[in-house]
Amino acid sequence: MAQPDEEAARMAAERQSMLIKPPGALGRLEALAIRLAAWQGTLKPSADRVRIVVFAGDHGVAEEGVSAFSQSVTAAMVRQFARGGAAVSVLVRSLGADLEVINLGTVEETGPVTGVPDLRLGPGTANFVRGPAMTERQLAQALRAGRDAAERARSGGVQIFIGGEMGIGNTTAAAALASALLGETAEALAGPGAGLGTEGVRHKAEVIRRALALHGPYLGDPLEVLRRLGGFEIAALAGAFVACAQQGLPVLVDGFICTAAALAAERLCPGAAGWFLYAHASAEPGHKRMLTALDGKPLLDLGMRLGEGSGAAVALPLLRLACALHSGMATFDEAGIAGKAP
Amino acid sequence: MAQPDEEAARMAAERQSMLIKPPGALGRLEALAIRLAAWQGTLKPSADRVRIVVFAGDHGVAEEGVSAFSQSVTAAMVRQFARGGAAVSVLVRSLGADLEVINLGTVEETGPVTGVPDLRLGPGTANFVRGPAMTERQLAQALRAGRDAAERARSGGVQIFIGGEMGIGNTTAAAALASALLGETAEALAGPGAGLGTEGVRHKAEVIRRALALHGPYLGDPLEVLRRLGGFEIAALAGAFVACAQQGLPVLVDGFICTAAALAAERLCPGAAGWFLYAHASAEPGHKRMLTALDGKPLLDLGMRLGEGSGAAVALPLLRLACALHSGMATFDEAGIAGKAP
Repeated sequence: MAQPDEEAARMAAERQSMLIKPPGALGRLEALAIRLAAWQGTLKPSADRVRIVVFAGDHGVAEEGVSAFSQSVTAAMVRQFARGGAAVSVLVRSLGADLEVINLGTVEETGPVTGVPDLRLGPGTANFVRGPAMTERQLAQALRAGRDAAERARSGGVQIFIGGEMGIGNTTAAAALASALLGETAEALAGPGAGLGTEGVRHKAEVIRRALALHGPYLGDPLEVLRRLGGFEIAALAGAFVACAQQGLPVLVDGFICTAAALAAERLCPGAAGWFLYAHASAEPGHKRMLTALDGKPLLDLGMRLGEGSGAAVALPLLRLACALHSGMATFDEAGIAGKAP
Repeated sequence: MAQPDEEAARMAAERQSMLIKPPGALGRLEALAIRLAAWQGTLKPSADRVRIVVFAGDHGVAEEGVSAFSQSVTAAMVRQFARGGAAVSVLVRSLGADLEVINLGTVEETGPVTGVPDLRLGPGTANFVRGPAMTERQLAQALRAGRDAAERARSGGVQIFIGGEMGIGNTTAAAALASALLGETAEALAGPGAGLGTEGVRHKAEVIRRALALHGPYLGDPLEVLRRLGGFEIAALAGAFVACAQQGLPVLVDGFICTAAALAAERLCPGAAGWFLYAHASAEPGHKRMLTALDGKPLLDLGMRLGEGSGAAVALPLLRLACALHSGMATFDEAGIAGKAP
């Protein structure tokens, strides 16, 4: 695991205390700047170079009727990511961030999509109420795809890594994964996802309960939990997040699915979460339990629940402005102002 | 009062329902885009052209020892706004916004500061525990300075107006003003401001209590409340906010002081608050009571308490991204995606 630079953090905290404002007046933006300083090992950090990597994959459990949308949407959205019509596409343009999209296994083929490597590990995962979602080989490949993306980002000079995901049915997989990792009930983690009603949520919880019962004997090992209950895109996110932490690349974690992957990453590699920031509180009710387990306090609470990395993208300006204020404000000395009344 | 365009709102809401995402998945960003559409009378609103107007003024009540900082700081900060070292200066640079700074009455003269008109109405207000903070003429001039700024913004093509303020002692004035307007106790509104401890907050509440007792017979009229308990910069903000609402220019309201001014504006001109958005929940504890009275739900909650319009500036990217998503995302039809499972 990479170690944050505590001397840089100390110097950044000292700088914050010298800026022309009452101490603490910038609230969480001060702590953000100090944390980024520690992560980047520099007095004046920045969050200019940002990459969003969206992993797409379908889920066998969709055949249990756990989503309001058809699986064909996953492939269609992959095409839209590349064409620029999806939320995350709009956000990366607005923010001047990079976007990488990786197809790890849509049920439908997307056809050739410019800029989107086809790393399909299968036509979606297997239905985890009948058996493991992934083979050992698929899990290893998905984790590797995530690690590769993190390494490309690091070597490309990226300063903040954002993971995103697309996959019809993936709130079910993320909820099952989090239930198993947290030892919580299916009901505590199952939510409306992309738009289920009360009866749909009840059914989704029942499906997760059946999966937890089937895989129960194997849920002590986080890698096995990920293989049995996760998805291609969720495993890739977990692999990316672990690699980010090992390389010292800070992660701005998006919502429900990404936080489940962050939780898996922390269980696979304890301490990894020391490199994670949490962008927003998802509207998905179970998100709070994962954040609590990770001791994460989200930056935004806007009722978002879209995925694609969109919540993290929307939170990115807070990091950038925190850095700009930290680096750009004058100190009391520079301004010739006394910090306190005599 | 200008009226929002309900037809534009209806069309914008319809557009939101057609974008390639589950309905509601962008949370509050959807409502923001729809509200901006109504305010701008257009299907595809934007928040590109933004002006922050910072009004500075000192407060006679500072002689009661209600602030952690010396009044010389107000003039020094005015110089820093222009020189680029203050938080708001950094933020406008980062955001590509305009900054106007208007000195309405610092105790110390600033000397000539490029770009900052000297509209000093006095060396600070009078101490409101002894008499009214402002004369009728000063109040009228301060309101006018605000109105003029709003009119300049409107005629300059500004799309979002942000007010900011600087004035040692102004959380005391804002708390007194809000106490009077809300009929709440001094204790409910007095907080640490720029850095008071428990004893300092207790003293501040006592000072406000004395002021409320002195001016009690005159507190039925919001204009008189503003004159007796407000400040030059607070009155200017109220004047600006009323003028914005009358002209149909949306206001992104900053924290404690600006919300007190927004409350005064709504009392002076009922309905004005229909043009206000609230940027953030200030760390100042009394802020919540004002927001409740205004039925305002802040966008951010980052523990900020700096003023200068800084919290509104930090929230601005949310408006911009809401507009970008609203205008830039593809519709289900454009993407050839079915909105729902069959």
